[in-house]
Amino acid sequence: MVEDKENSASAGQEPVSKKAAKKQAKLAKKAEHKADTAAALAANEAAGDNAADHAAARYGLSEMIQSKDKRSEREFVTVPELSAHVGKGLVWVRGRVHTTRAKGKQCFLILRQQSSTVQCILAVGDIISKQMVKFAGNIPKESIIDIQAKAVAVPTKIESCTEQLLELSVEQIFIISQAKAQLPLQIEDASRPENADDAEGLNIRVNQDTRLDNRVLDLRTPANQAIFRLEAGVCRLFRDILTEKGFTEIHTPKIISAASEGGANVFTVSYFKDSAYLAQSPQLYKQMAIAADFDKVYTVGAVFRAEDSNTHRHLTEFVGLDLEMAFKYHYHEVLHTIGNTFTAIFKGLRDKYSREIEAVGQQYKVEPFKFLEPPLILQFAEGVAMLREAGIETGDEEDLSTPNEKLLGRLVKAKYDTDFYILDKFPLAIRPFYTMPDPNNPMYSNSYDMFMRGEEILSGAQRIHDPEYLIERAKHHGIDITKIAAYIESFRYGCPPHAGGGIGMERVVMLYLGLDNIRKTSMFPRDPKRLTP
Amino acid sequence: MVEDKENSASAGQEPVSKKAAKKQAKLAKKAEHKADTAAALAANEAAGDNAADHAAARYGLSEMIQSKDKRSEREFVTVPELSAHVGKGLVWVRGRVHTTRAKGKQCFLILRQQSSTVQCILAVGDIISKQMVKFAGNIPKESIIDIQAKAVAVPTKIESCTEQLLELSVEQIFIISQAKAQLPLQIEDASRPENADDAEGLNIRVNQDTRLDNRVLDLRTPANQAIFRLEAGVCRLFRDILTEKGFTEIHTPKIISAASEGGANVFTVSYFKDSAYLAQSPQLYKQMAIAADFDKVYTVGAVFRAEDSNTHRHLTEFVGLDLEMAFKYHYHEVLHTIGNTFTAIFKGLRDKYSREIEAVGQQYKVEPFKFLEPPLILQFAEGVAMLREAGIETGDEEDLSTPNEKLLGRLVKAKYDTDFYILDKFPLAIRPFYTMPDPNNPMYSNSYDMFMRGEEILSGAQRIHDPEYLIERAKHHGIDITKIAAYIESFRYGCPPHAGGGIGMERVVMLYLGLDNIRKTSMFPRDPKRLTP
Repeated sequence: MVEDKENSASAGQEPVSKKAAKKQAKLAKKAEHKADTAAALAANEAAGDNAADHAAARYGLSEMIQSKDKRSEREFVTVPELSAHVGKGLVWVRGRVHTTRAKGKQCFLILRQQSSTVQCILAVGDIISKQMVKFAGNIPKESIIDIQAKAVAVPTKIESCTEQLLELSVEQIFIISQAKAQLPLQIEDASRPENADDAEGLNIRVNQDTRLDNRVLDLRTPANQAIFRLEAGVCRLFRDILTEKGFTEIHTPKIISAASEGGANVFTVSYFKDSAYLAQSPQLYKQMAIAADFDKVYTVGAVFRAEDSNTHRHLTEFVGLDLEMAFKYHYHEVLHTIGNTFTAIFKGLRDKYSREIEAVGQQYKVEPFKFLEPPLILQFAEGVAMLREAGIETGDEEDLSTPNEKLLGRLVKAKYDTDFYILDKFPLAIRPFYTMPDPNNPMYSNSYDMFMRGEEILSGAQRIHDPEYLIERAKHHGIDITKIAAYIESFRYGCPPHAGGGIGMERVVMLYLGLDNIRKTSMFPRDPKRLTP
Repeated sequence: MVEDKENSASAGQEPVSKKAAKKQAKLAKKAEHKADTAAALAANEAAGDNAADHAAARYGLSEMIQSKDKRSEREFVTVPELSAHVGKGLVWVRGRVHTTRAKGKQCFLILRQQSSTVQCILAVGDIISKQMVKFAGNIPKESIIDIQAKAVAVPTKIESCTEQLLELSVEQIFIISQAKAQLPLQIEDASRPENADDAEGLNIRVNQDTRLDNRVLDLRTPANQAIFRLEAGVCRLFRDILTEKGFTEIHTPKIISAASEGGANVFTVSYFKDSAYLAQSPQLYKQMAIAADFDKVYTVGAVFRAEDSNTHRHLTEFVGLDLEMAFKYHYHEVLHTIGNTFTAIFKGLRDKYSREIEAVGQQYKVEPFKFLEPPLILQFAEGVAMLREAGIETGDEEDLSTPNEKLLGRLVKAKYDTDFYILDKFPLAIRPFYTMPDPNNPMYSNSYDMFMRGEEILSGAQRIHDPEYLIERAKHHGIDITKIAAYIESFRYGCPPHAGGGIGMERVVMLYLGLDNIRKTSMFPRDPKRLTP
């Protein structure tokens, strides 16, 4: 046994105390899986059982980091920063063991930091012992480690890593947080390109439920790291662009006393001795903010739909990007504002998130997203005409079915070369009672949908701001006026004409990237069958 | 009767069609309140019944704005922009009638646009008729109007308006959206300074329930316009500062399958054939994002507490500003990041929202918010010592009661002259099971609270990232391990040490501004007794 390593460890080196080793061994004993225990014991054996190990102080299981000291002398470098350190002194790097393989007197280990990877090498010699090589080769994949190493230029490109021109020559290696030896999915499998050829018979797929059940692992793939960073970018762009245009952010309640749109598809909540509902949209509250003189508002928040739809594009809980705006004379003032906001988001993503788009493209084959500036605006009737020209029978006042919506998207793409367009002037009959009718043609309304790659991502309209006219329209729809009295009341103290819309955040990201399932763009998705993790 | 005004109206003037007038009259007839009808009829009478009215085309009820045409020739000017138009041509302004008073041949009307006001004058002469003066004097307060007018310099300051050096000489005036004649509260009453002297016996207050029941009106006061613009600023600063520091925004589910903190104070949701809960905090999901390599994350979203607390600082639904961050060796890396984020928010508010702070100060008497840079950090034990010195008996492991918390805030303010401070190293016994114990003193933990004006606004800690140690601590707390299996599982695939915290947005705004009730900083507050509007 090595004598009291805590005292013998020289400055700047990692003390592996016997106490820590014992604690880890004790913890390991409790672990459910034999494999874990075996790995920990191997590590422990390597760390302490050979007094002749000249590298004994240079590796091992680190004591659990409990904020005992600040070790401010130890400066960490990120993987992308390594190229600036080639040929210079030792650096510390913290990352995950992506893969590791000890073979004879050498160990090759790939260290991963988010989406970056670098090859690390340990070779038996003055600094490294054979026990240390064995230890490094036995570290369970996905464990977090600290290494001290020198960055060395390599003669031939390392194709398997993002750092292709250098490798790390390791001098110290410590496990900071050890992973289970048996993982429910392998990051390599979960990261494999969808259309890769199956030459080596290694084309293992991870199915979606396995991914979602083990989301903590699944989210570590380069594509997922990129998807959720880009998603943060969509929200950021949405807010920044609207703030620039003079909008104010508001927050609207999710628990409401009455079902917002008639009571269908709404979740019920027990509220003390009473019942309440989860809001299906912030619309009433956005409109109240307009009636309260906030002029232009947006809100980003959870929206709930108790719809038993098990499709690629429905969630029971999603993030709504909602906006509402007073206008002077024509709702097109708002329509253009929304259209330009989308164009600005697309430009922002293209310009600021090209790395993320590329990372997603390495796993999922996707055409770049095309858009026009200013965006294409078609009349609903024009869309119907295009569909009829393509041989589809559809009525003048009939809503777009999902297949027709997608077909129209393809027709528009073929004719105008854009993946984004606006369809204006929907038939009045298929829109809610609060939608303003078109004053020039009673069959239509001042309402619009917006589409990305042929799927609806925004629905919006001019709302009726006159309380008496609102009552008239509600009665026409057979709605019980007493149930919407509070809604109508909001317009009795003067309200400017206004319009707005609601956007599904996850849909925008899915369709911008051309992904096939909305569960790929919701970090912890909720659908009728999934409430975990 | 005037002949077909639609044809007779000259270019650039507002056509008041007979059809529109009839429609409005018809709508007015339907109105429940006699007062409304009377006002509308008076307006109608003024608008149409006198053929000798030379100003007939210059005023009236406008047709409901239904986006019939774009009237792009009509350029609107905002109230603050008016000073640039003094002595120049006619401009259009849209705003609300704040007050109006016709007296003989003149009408004085104050037009309000959000927090800005300007005096308007109509005097009988070549342009204005006596019917037009009568019409203007009868417009119900809070109605939205369009006026065309010339900006004229005034010899003496108009103290009652924000535009004190000019008034508007009106040539056209049209009602765009007419308010009820009887308002449930008066904006002047709702705006009155809290500490104004009662010399004229006019010191009418509007109580909080009346305000909240009629929130659309209440939100129009200058103080409320400012509060919610500043609140948007808090969120914006929080996000921008953290983005700058390398944080990624995430979105976490609000509907969860198991109650996050043991099941107390949680709302139940019917989820198809099952039951679910509303999340009390995004903590588990933030931690999973850390375990999934997102390194530093924040999330802004609704948080729910089914607590039957009817106090000045409890809501059942509020907006959480949550963050979580991996660190290298010591949770103070995170504590300093959070502390500096607060300091940066306070500086941002002071520098960019001084107008809003001033507007709130005109209604509510408040001391400016003081803070130190870097922020003051005290140990919990130091806080206890200060309380004891002030004669308070409190145990070493006893949590701060609300009165003690407030007293300590006053003691800290007196000694250090700061309204913000951090209390570090809370006793282990009073923190949740997942809090990391202090490795140097078993009585304490690596946890902290942050305070504004003596009230807690953030609670946070280093979390235990080792699954076996987490089990040990959960057992110590008597927690059923099977119920938190999924939580523990998240840490089995390697997880970096991490810490974080959650901030109540409405509390930050309330305490920054020194307001006395959290309902003043929630646009549509939810408490055990309030679910509307």
